[in-house]
Amino acid sequence: MKLIRFGEAGQEKPGVLINDKRIDVSSIVTDYNEAFFENDGLAKLQEALKNNTSFPEVSNDIRLGSPVARPSKIICIGLNYVDHCEETGAAIPEEPIIFFKSTTSLCGPNDNLIIPKNSDKTDWEVELAFVVGKKASYVAEEDALDYLAGYCLLNDYSERAFQIERGGQWAKGKGCDTFAPLGPILTTADEIEDVNNLSMWLTVNGKKFQNSNTSNLIFKIPFLIHYLSQFMTLLPGDVVSTGTPPGVGLGIKPNPVYIKAGDVIELSIEGLGTSKQVAVAY
Amino acid sequence: MKLIRFGEAGQEKPGVLINDKRIDVSSIVTDYNEAFFENDGLAKLQEALKNNTSFPEVSNDIRLGSPVARPSKIICIGLNYVDHCEETGAAIPEEPIIFFKSTTSLCGPNDNLIIPKNSDKTDWEVELAFVVGKKASYVAEEDALDYLAGYCLLNDYSERAFQIERGGQWAKGKGCDTFAPLGPILTTADEIEDVNNLSMWLTVNGKKFQNSNTSNLIFKIPFLIHYLSQFMTLLPGDVVSTGTPPGVGLGIKPNPVYIKAGDVIELSIEGLGTSKQVAVAY
Repeated sequence: MKLIRFGEAGQEKPGVLINDKRIDVSSIVTDYNEAFFENDGLAKLQEALKNNTSFPEVSNDIRLGSPVARPSKIICIGLNYVDHCEETGAAIPEEPIIFFKSTTSLCGPNDNLIIPKNSDKTDWEVELAFVVGKKASYVAEEDALDYLAGYCLLNDYSERAFQIERGGQWAKGKGCDTFAPLGPILTTADEIEDVNNLSMWLTVNGKKFQNSNTSNLIFKIPFLIHYLSQFMTLLPGDVVSTGTPPGVGLGIKPNPVYIKAGDVIELSIEGLGTSKQVAVAY
Repeated sequence: MKLIRFGEAGQEKPGVLINDKRIDVSSIVTDYNEAFFENDGLAKLQEALKNNTSFPEVSNDIRLGSPVARPSKIICIGLNYVDHCEETGAAIPEEPIIFFKSTTSLCGPNDNLIIPKNSDKTDWEVELAFVVGKKASYVAEEDALDYLAGYCLLNDYSERAFQIERGGQWAKGKGCDTFAPLGPILTTADEIEDVNNLSMWLTVNGKKFQNSNTSNLIFKIPFLIHYLSQFMTLLPGDVVSTGTPPGVGLGIKPNPVYIKAGDVIELSIEGLGTSKQVAVAY
């Protein structure tokens, strides 16, 4: 299945995408939230869709929200692409680097990117994110796929001055409002044949800056679920983003390139759709 | 007012503490969550308590939960005590260091501390936390107190090996389950005469390790609200913890002291009550 949430920000309803048609399933699903995933919502929804073809269709003009409701956490993995390590000359990490994005940064896939006040180093990062399907604590790597609901496209926007030049941890530059456009869809795990072989790209004003493949991921999803669950409980609906390939603005030689108002950022991962953000000043 | 939440984990009901009696207000309050604070719940509750003295009393034997429901985020401030900087020889930060605790680390004030698997450096940190009262984005320092609901006692448990020795950011050592016992009470801002002059202490097995006063805070709460709101929107019910004074286990010379199963940790801040955790192995 391909899950969507549609409607105005804060009032999204759950739907599914079937043959490019948007179907409203709000008559049987409250929302794609913790309770939905926890109570076997995916299997129940699939069953309902088989037995009932009368769900209303929704216009393609309606705004899409994040395909999952605000999760308990958005966890990100740093420096997780071989080619990104090569590009920057960094050693391949011995174990995953993890950090949080504020969940208030979550927004719809095509919402405007708001460049924060006093920012001149807002940067992009196309990433493969996954959504947790059930409560996960101390999960063995070989069982990890049981805890996976599906995959989404995420742009892990980052303000590099806030992140790196303002003292201490990365938190300041990762969680600004609209810094986590997720979607357009949550593609359930069964629909992706090989998650470790998906092409991915990102353009700014039509120029390709990132162009890679998930085959370059250093730490794969089963290991990440195992690893993260040693440090905290993952809840159903939690979002984990697996890191970005080379080509971010910070890494461009000789001069980094950052986003300015009016820029158009488009990104895509095979099987997970395409999203597009227009940058606006706060 | 002094807000409490009582009952089994995950099924807590809202209450208030009046003259050491626990009063059940679940007939008029759903929970102390984002919607409660956002919709002027504190003022409405105060009014209701004035007009109605027939709320049922609750036994003092019932477990207390965190006095706020799971927030969108728990933000912590690092290295925010003058005497802690002096102790460690660190320079006073030019601006606040911030990081997130996973919201799944939140628990009741007297719940057991679960020492994670493979941990031998679990440490304590008594902290003054505050709770955000309304949505805050780009707030001026002089207006910041309008955005404050009240104060709580927090133990910011930290696994020092996970935090410092496992690569990258602090996230791994700060968000383990039960690493954020909050409460026993949320004391509303109007009940604390001078939040910058509250004594605070923490003992392990009866021995005092931390003993300070909030007068030593480098960055005060109005500045923190202003500052944080430059980087992300604070939501009603969000928890911000302001940092710990000297005396954590990591800092003890010549050898750091860490928590082992069976240890009893007690902590208190003037006006915010006392909490007590017993350490157990996972």
